[in-house]
Amino acid sequence: MKKYLRPDEWCVIEEGFDPANHRASESIFSIGNGKMGQRANFEEKYSGSSLQGSYVAGVYYPDKTRVGWWKNGYPEYFAKVLNSPNWIGINVHVDGTELDLNYCDVENFVRTLNMKEGYLQREFDATLDGNKKIHVKAQRFVSMADTENGAIRYEVTPVNFSGKISFTPYIDGDIENEDSNYDEKFWNILDVDASEGAAYLESQTKKSDFRCGFAMRYQATVNGKAVTTKPELIQSAKWVGNRIELEVKEGEKACLEKFVGVTSSLNYATDVLRSNAVELATCAYKKGFDQLFADHKQKWEDKWVHSDIKIKGDVEAQQGIRFNIFHLNQTYTGEDERLNVGPKGFTGEKYGGTTYWDTEAYCIPFFLMTSPSQVTRQLLIYRYKHLQKAIENAAKLGFTDGAALYPMVTANGEECHNEWEITFMEVHRNGAMAYAIHNYIRHTGDYKYLEEYGLEVLVAISRFWSQRITFSEAKNQFVMLGVTGPNEYENNINNNWYTNKIAVWCMKYTMEALNYVKDSHPARYKELVAKMNFNSGEETQRWKDIMGNMHFPYNQELDVIMQQDGFMDKEQLMADDLDPAQRPINQYWSWDRILRSNFIKQADTLQGIYAFEEEFTNEEIERNFNFYEPRTVHESSLSPCVHSILATKIGRIEKAYEMYLRTSRLDLDDYNAEVHEGLHITSMAGTWMSIVEGFGGKRAYDQKLYLSPVIPEQWQEYAFRITFKGNDLEVRVTAKEVEIISHAKETIELYLYDELVSVEANESKTVWR
Amino acid sequence: MKKYLRPDEWCVIEEGFDPANHRASESIFSIGNGKMGQRANFEEKYSGSSLQGSYVAGVYYPDKTRVGWWKNGYPEYFAKVLNSPNWIGINVHVDGTELDLNYCDVENFVRTLNMKEGYLQREFDATLDGNKKIHVKAQRFVSMADTENGAIRYEVTPVNFSGKISFTPYIDGDIENEDSNYDEKFWNILDVDASEGAAYLESQTKKSDFRCGFAMRYQATVNGKAVTTKPELIQSAKWVGNRIELEVKEGEKACLEKFVGVTSSLNYATDVLRSNAVELATCAYKKGFDQLFADHKQKWEDKWVHSDIKIKGDVEAQQGIRFNIFHLNQTYTGEDERLNVGPKGFTGEKYGGTTYWDTEAYCIPFFLMTSPSQVTRQLLIYRYKHLQKAIENAAKLGFTDGAALYPMVTANGEECHNEWEITFMEVHRNGAMAYAIHNYIRHTGDYKYLEEYGLEVLVAISRFWSQRITFSEAKNQFVMLGVTGPNEYENNINNNWYTNKIAVWCMKYTMEALNYVKDSHPARYKELVAKMNFNSGEETQRWKDIMGNMHFPYNQELDVIMQQDGFMDKEQLMADDLDPAQRPINQYWSWDRILRSNFIKQADTLQGIYAFEEEFTNEEIERNFNFYEPRTVHESSLSPCVHSILATKIGRIEKAYEMYLRTSRLDLDDYNAEVHEGLHITSMAGTWMSIVEGFGGKRAYDQKLYLSPVIPEQWQEYAFRITFKGNDLEVRVTAKEVEIISHAKETIELYLYDELVSVEANESKTVWR
Repeated sequence: MKKYLRPDEWCVIEEGFDPANHRASESIFSIGNGKMGQRANFEEKYSGSSLQGSYVAGVYYPDKTRVGWWKNGYPEYFAKVLNSPNWIGINVHVDGTELDLNYCDVENFVRTLNMKEGYLQREFDATLDGNKKIHVKAQRFVSMADTENGAIRYEVTPVNFSGKISFTPYIDGDIENEDSNYDEKFWNILDVDASEGAAYLESQTKKSDFRCGFAMRYQATVNGKAVTTKPELIQSAKWVGNRIELEVKEGEKACLEKFVGVTSSLNYATDVLRSNAVELATCAYKKGFDQLFADHKQKWEDKWVHSDIKIKGDVEAQQGIRFNIFHLNQTYTGEDERLNVGPKGFTGEKYGGTTYWDTEAYCIPFFLMTSPSQVTRQLLIYRYKHLQKAIENAAKLGFTDGAALYPMVTANGEECHNEWEITFMEVHRNGAMAYAIHNYIRHTGDYKYLEEYGLEVLVAISRFWSQRITFSEAKNQFVMLGVTGPNEYENNINNNWYTNKIAVWCMKYTMEALNYVKDSHPARYKELVAKMNFNSGEETQRWKDIMGNMHFPYNQELDVIMQQDGFMDKEQLMADDLDPAQRPINQYWSWDRILRSNFIKQADTLQGIYAFEEEFTNEEIERNFNFYEPRTVHESSLSPCVHSILATKIGRIEKAYEMYLRTSRLDLDDYNAEVHEGLHITSMAGTWMSIVEGFGGKRAYDQKLYLSPVIPEQWQEYAFRITFKGNDLEVRVTAKEVEIISHAKETIELYLYDELVSVEANESKTVWR
Repeated sequence: MKKYLRPDEWCVIEEGFDPANHRASESIFSIGNGKMGQRANFEEKYSGSSLQGSYVAGVYYPDKTRVGWWKNGYPEYFAKVLNSPNWIGINVHVDGTELDLNYCDVENFVRTLNMKEGYLQREFDATLDGNKKIHVKAQRFVSMADTENGAIRYEVTPVNFSGKISFTPYIDGDIENEDSNYDEKFWNILDVDASEGAAYLESQTKKSDFRCGFAMRYQATVNGKAVTTKPELIQSAKWVGNRIELEVKEGEKACLEKFVGVTSSLNYATDVLRSNAVELATCAYKKGFDQLFADHKQKWEDKWVHSDIKIKGDVEAQQGIRFNIFHLNQTYTGEDERLNVGPKGFTGEKYGGTTYWDTEAYCIPFFLMTSPSQVTRQLLIYRYKHLQKAIENAAKLGFTDGAALYPMVTANGEECHNEWEITFMEVHRNGAMAYAIHNYIRHTGDYKYLEEYGLEVLVAISRFWSQRITFSEAKNQFVMLGVTGPNEYENNINNNWYTNKIAVWCMKYTMEALNYVKDSHPARYKELVAKMNFNSGEETQRWKDIMGNMHFPYNQELDVIMQQDGFMDKEQLMADDLDPAQRPINQYWSWDRILRSNFIKQADTLQGIYAFEEEFTNEEIERNFNFYEPRTVHESSLSPCVHSILATKIGRIEKAYEMYLRTSRLDLDDYNAEVHEGLHITSMAGTWMSIVEGFGGKRAYDQKLYLSPVIPEQWQEYAFRITFKGNDLEVRVTAKEVEIISHAKETIELYLYDELVSVEANESKTVWR
């Protein structure tokens, strides 16, 4: 854990420049707009340690798999999130000396991420050549309104001298991924072209043949007056820019505004990539920085209306939740069905791929409640479109007859992951796909989704479970052997309770869905049965057999669910007793030691209790929580939120608050010493869940909304806004009252502390607690 | 399985050239002498598929580890068996056209490995340029007498024309390993120098800085007359040779004899590598091919006297056992304590490293009985010298206080392997180190070894077990969690019976050893206690606690040992029911499918029963054999031999014979479709064991020798020769009689079918069966 950022309600602020924090800050201060984004790399040259990262959504590279020992079934490649040509670069020279914060004295450094308005800003004083002091202010944003535009305003003011300031705005295609498996570069550069005041670079990914066009325009001024000096045009095979030199007097402000248009072959034919990028850059240039920014800011304002959570009396908590919501909104906007929510979004390379079960388990609950239902529907259709690949993926592992195993990591439906204990064994992810359909329907009532898309996915998943589960003569029960549960600190275990639970639930839900479609739309049902070659009698009989006789490990003595067979054979140690110097254990312990220990990476049994909470009494939840939480080291970002929600449920608000802080400030305070690699984007949805589902007690059963708000004593008030079945409402909670403010067009009914409450359209209702 | 070789008692013979078999033959026809060796690559250029492989014992390269996902504790590098400069090369041109079997008609091709005399020979007719036919005969050996020399006689006879034959003998340092992790080359070439009739090349491994010198001389003749034409000298940065052109008339024989001297920095100071290599080549050249070969042949004759096994009436079985003995003797001669027995010897790259537990579990029984005790003692001291590294290795995994974990794979004592399920979990290997000490002493009576070296190793190993074993409150017993047993088709399992068994045995044996040294040499004991910081009371009390209350999985209903906890939860399938098209399953099934199945790669429970056979009744052995053998797919080369031995023990001679054929002809008949990668050298010792310990029934308890020979009905007679406590005896077995022929200097006592028998020095005794 490391705290170096100033708490603030709407901003993240770093004061003073410490190169040791730079990579972490590059992650934290990242900006994006769902279509592109990048780490908070400096515009000017920086020769110190930095992870360059600029990303274009949907563009990936199939890097040849690297393993120590090949095993059958491993995928041939790993879809890497691709560091793309750098379009933010502006080299700066002061009387011929290059500005590089690694080599000059830096004072009054302030880096700000303004989350309300969605921009990144840096200000600092730098002294070059021993005595020339300049003041620098740089602002950057990636437009939420003009989503293929980015803009930078870079100002340099000589403080104690007059001299020459030169700016070299450029686009650099000679970039690399740090995580390249074989130190290969992933891009070909097809075109570089510098002209006066403009430049263009076109790049092509090797193998996957994605193409991206980057066009720039710029405007230089001194003290607000446009500079007309002719620039020097510079270009090489992979680099293109202009160099412009300005005579600047002491106290005058030299300013460069750089406007960039970015196009990709996902959205344009390759022969018009260039013309469109150039037009985009030119439009932005003509619109000007201020107007471009104003439009952008307006979009952010709209977003905040619907997704903001306000917390009074606790700046750190407020900053934490906004940081999470801000990054979620930067990563995915729901406008393109081919995109998904990568675990690092536009903030780093790690993990590769773009889609994990995180989307279904964490992000969908967020988008379901803060966005139109269409956004979630698109995320579901994304998986529907990958169904055939999931069937092929299962076939590689020996499954037959249309059984589907969704990949652990993917960019296009094909599996990318290559650790057998995850790739082949962490099969519970399949359950998340089915659960997401259920979750979507119970929040939206869109049953039509089943017949259109959902049923095929459900049947294919249930077929997988049916084959993956075997019968144990010894137990006289069905078992599921050799799996890895959500707790990845156990590998190749037998009868992971969570996996068994969600597998059986999938079969049950699939049968309900089959019946629903059969009843509501018999013709479509018939069509689907034929398409799926579904043998209703035989297949569902097997599912019923399993449902009726599945083994669920349980410890009678302790009266708690067992995470897996044999869990109690382990030495029972508590996370609090661990030597803090050895935490996180995944950075200090060898893998076998972790596996042999009882320490739990993330909610596993508790993840199942969270998913199927309605099946458990509060006492049962409490017993299991009290057993598992102390054994949990929370070394997955997906862990604290579930614990926070359940802690609230059982009345342990202090614990819930501790977990909330951990999840909401995971990256800001770098709990797991890894923020330099990028942010934990998908778990940010979990943070939102820990307020809305945790403290707010929001539930949805049978398309009915439930709320049971509590408030941590550290807070004076908090408020969130949610959408439920198309109705928009705000919930404001203090220690004394709960106010429901309706923005809906009709009367809303909901259960507040299990009492039915109606709120008229555009009215509010306050209930004393 | 693939049978393309002609059975013969003393030779391996390939008739007809099929490029599809070439890589397999390159492995099978490999030659070596313990100090160097190489695959049966062609001397002349061959542009078809080939795995070039020439190896110098003890020379390895620390290749940077390659993994998909790094885990703490993984070793930084993997010691690769190093493909060394190619010294066998002789390019051949016929009237300017290069001889390349990939591009000409080949007839009458015969490749022979003469195991009796230890040489490789090829004969064939090749037609070049459409009509020029030549007859070629090439002989090669690596001398067992002059162990730094290799020699080749290469003869070309134009059959239907007169013309120019040119020979280009060379040394090529521009070579690579196919298994290089990052496609890097491992050698620097420091020196190339061609002179008339000679050439020298010196190479240096990157990072590990081993150096090797390769000097060549040659002699060219036509029809036996020396040719005096001046050669063309050719050299480039990594290649050096001479080219000599001969005018040869139809029917005349052009011959090149190439003599090579190879030195390495293991044995010479670097500044005399060259002078010694040159002198070695020159000596060989002066001695001449015939004399060099005669000396070599004599050495082989001596080796065969002591290690041959004769089988009458079954050519395939005879060929199989000699093939195994031949390769074992080629791989390790016991003359250098820094060397060990690599799993592929000098026949391929796969697996890397040089030392596995195979040495202790398989090779030591062979060398114990066929070589002076000093040979085995050196193999034990090899491990003693690695003790400190084994302690460091254990420390990396969190073990303390002098606990040692010997590496899974090593070249210098450091762990090289990098799959967590093996590296960190296949800890049973540690037991093999202790068992080898026990085995050595019970065969030799050399108790002094304990106080000199053995005790320190034993204590360090027992300390490891003591920490690795934990107490299960649930079972109220000690357990060992998260291991991989010898059956690597189970990973991260709990309470592998074999591992638990050998762990507990280690502690018991260590306590016996402690007592022995304490009694026999109290001063040394005191010294060792201080050196090891051994807390006798506390440490042995913990060992006793474990010994008295260890969990050993057992199935009461079936009355068999359980390989691990939960084994009976698996679907119980039989190997015979597998689709033959899906075997070996490790080439067709994904890893999770293999792990979830009950199929057993190699003896696991049965390996333990083999090791501790005296503790089991025949009925117990039979029950366990009958349970486990049908579930075993024998996809490790180490599997069939143990099954063969136990099958004999329980009177299932037919089964034993089937397993014997499988182990002895594993490579010759390519049972596991992988012989092209190299031979299974260490398992070859298992083949020897399946005759001597299997059919011969040889046992050693308390330094007493037991024999209980049986004979498969396919055989008329078989005979083996063993050394026991320095005494040398032959055992000849027919269906009717057993003859013991003593070559000892004193009366030998042994138990034949459990009856005490004495054989006078140099007498023989026949017992009717």
